[in-house]
Amino acid sequence: MRRKITLKDIARELEVSISTVSKALKNSEEIGRDTKEKVQAFAKLYNYKPNNIAISLKNKYTKNIGVIIPDIVHHFFTTVFRGIEKYANSKGYNVIICVSDESFDKEVINMELLANGSIDGFIMSLSAETEEKNDFSHLIEVTNQGIPLVLFDRVTDVINCDKVILNDKEISFSVVQKFIQSGRKNIALVTTDNYFNVSKKRMEGYKSALEHNGIPLNENRILTLPYHDEIEDTQITDFFNSNEIDAVLCVNEIFAIRCMRVVQKMGIKIPEDISFVGFTNGMLSRYASPKLSSIAQHGDKMGEIAAQMLIEKIEREYIEEEDEAYRTEVIEGTLIERESTIN
Amino acid sequence: MRRKITLKDIARELEVSISTVSKALKNSEEIGRDTKEKVQAFAKLYNYKPNNIAISLKNKYTKNIGVIIPDIVHHFFTTVFRGIEKYANSKGYNVIICVSDESFDKEVINMELLANGSIDGFIMSLSAETEEKNDFSHLIEVTNQGIPLVLFDRVTDVINCDKVILNDKEISFSVVQKFIQSGRKNIALVTTDNYFNVSKKRMEGYKSALEHNGIPLNENRILTLPYHDEIEDTQITDFFNSNEIDAVLCVNEIFAIRCMRVVQKMGIKIPEDISFVGFTNGMLSRYASPKLSSIAQHGDKMGEIAAQMLIEKIEREYIEEEDEAYRTEVIEGTLIERESTIN
Repeated sequence: MRRKITLKDIARELEVSISTVSKALKNSEEIGRDTKEKVQAFAKLYNYKPNNIAISLKNKYTKNIGVIIPDIVHHFFTTVFRGIEKYANSKGYNVIICVSDESFDKEVINMELLANGSIDGFIMSLSAETEEKNDFSHLIEVTNQGIPLVLFDRVTDVINCDKVILNDKEISFSVVQKFIQSGRKNIALVTTDNYFNVSKKRMEGYKSALEHNGIPLNENRILTLPYHDEIEDTQITDFFNSNEIDAVLCVNEIFAIRCMRVVQKMGIKIPEDISFVGFTNGMLSRYASPKLSSIAQHGDKMGEIAAQMLIEKIEREYIEEEDEAYRTEVIEGTLIERESTIN
Repeated sequence: MRRKITLKDIARELEVSISTVSKALKNSEEIGRDTKEKVQAFAKLYNYKPNNIAISLKNKYTKNIGVIIPDIVHHFFTTVFRGIEKYANSKGYNVIICVSDESFDKEVINMELLANGSIDGFIMSLSAETEEKNDFSHLIEVTNQGIPLVLFDRVTDVINCDKVILNDKEISFSVVQKFIQSGRKNIALVTTDNYFNVSKKRMEGYKSALEHNGIPLNENRILTLPYHDEIEDTQITDFFNSNEIDAVLCVNEIFAIRCMRVVQKMGIKIPEDISFVGFTNGMLSRYASPKLSSIAQHGDKMGEIAAQMLIEKIEREYIEEEDEAYRTEVIEGTLIERESTIN
């Protein structure tokens, strides 16, 4: 018995991207006629059906939940997973995880794999590449099939579904506000590229707090570090050498700890000369020296709520399409003060 | 259409453990006749078949690999997963993970879930509870069905299958040997309970190095810390107060970092007064203060080799049962020397 042909098989066979195949099958205008015809003919020949099993089994519960996370070596995502699992298990559901590795193609492949009837619904956080490409057709396909979906942390306004997010803007605002109240004025932000919706929100909070306090924005005080590539110490040294800085908000704990190491080597004292706060509140924050004040994102709670939202949707059987209402739950971050800030 | 009944359903319905159901269905002598009859009758009534889909689809490849790990918030397991994924993806396989959470029941449920035809083979590391119970019937069942299985790190001699392990005994021996050569004589071991096969091997290496150097074993210099429950600082303080110790081998980096914090508070200098080495070599080792010398377990490589072994087995179609040969690949740990030891 031949196994079902997948988007990936078609892409490999015709030497085009998975995204092209997906669009060609939907007759998208973005794809040239030649390619569309080739893809459609191939799909027909090999009897490709998008997630055909899922459709036929729509009313058969598997009691499994599929989770897709961008990275497995990452404290925040793994704690969210634990929260999902805790709630799901308590309701008799098992949890299967796939990792997108921050890749758009792997996210699409994983969704296709799980949507073949193995699971009753999805919980996921978008890959970096998906956010950068701004292409969510695979999510639209799954929701169109009636498979419930909950997005957490890295979400998009393009998709109508339940969402769980952190109050990224508000908590960043309040941390910068706190820096200012403790007498700091030259406040830096260390961040990633802005295609991450969470980094964007955190920057909005940073800018808004400065504005609120009549401090003019100085773009030189914003350092953008690579998310995946190796960070060079010189990038950090140059930044702190060429700017007068007395407080730093970092969008993750790794950036904070890298910066703390570099400035300590430069003879700068933490927190006397510079205060540091980072997002994440993982093990690194607790074991850093000095211990890093950090923003707890309550991954466990986020996961529990995401699972609760999903299971509610799965178990509400007869929803009139008009009645479908989606909600976004906002979790409040908490600043855990340790040794890297003045209390 | 009613979904397939599972071991878990039977266990819940009859209010017995999953392990009891599994044994009762195999007519095990460990289970009383009443229970056996009840379980067997129930299973017959609801038409329970052990992984019936898997059997019928034996010759249909899914191109998916199932991975079961004990813990997801754990650097070593997540790096092994990355290695598995890297190799599997390069061969056109996708990877699905389930987490046993160190629980025997969850390990059994996850195996049952994945063995229902979703995957071509398993890669797994045993849960703490499975090692403690010493019950591997779920693994035997899967291998009897002809589903290839590779065990890594936490393995057992009871199961015939391919395995990937670290040279735990030898690398522990060589670290202790190194302590002795640098003039240390009062060497401690900080470990977990011995039902973990890796902790057992590490202790064997520790004892063997002492013996090799004519240093009598002092059981007071072995501290057993809880693996899951909260560790109390006083346990560590008492240990270092009541023993003369100048070098410590810890079976994981968290134990090492906890101990380093406590002894530093006691005014002891690292590495001048006491040297520390820990297994794992995760982020904590690199960011600890002083930076921890640690044993790299090469999780990535372990994962790649496990995936390679599994895919070879999956793709060798016509194996005569007599020809079935299993191998154990031993990865050599590497001591990465940092600031917590004298070079």
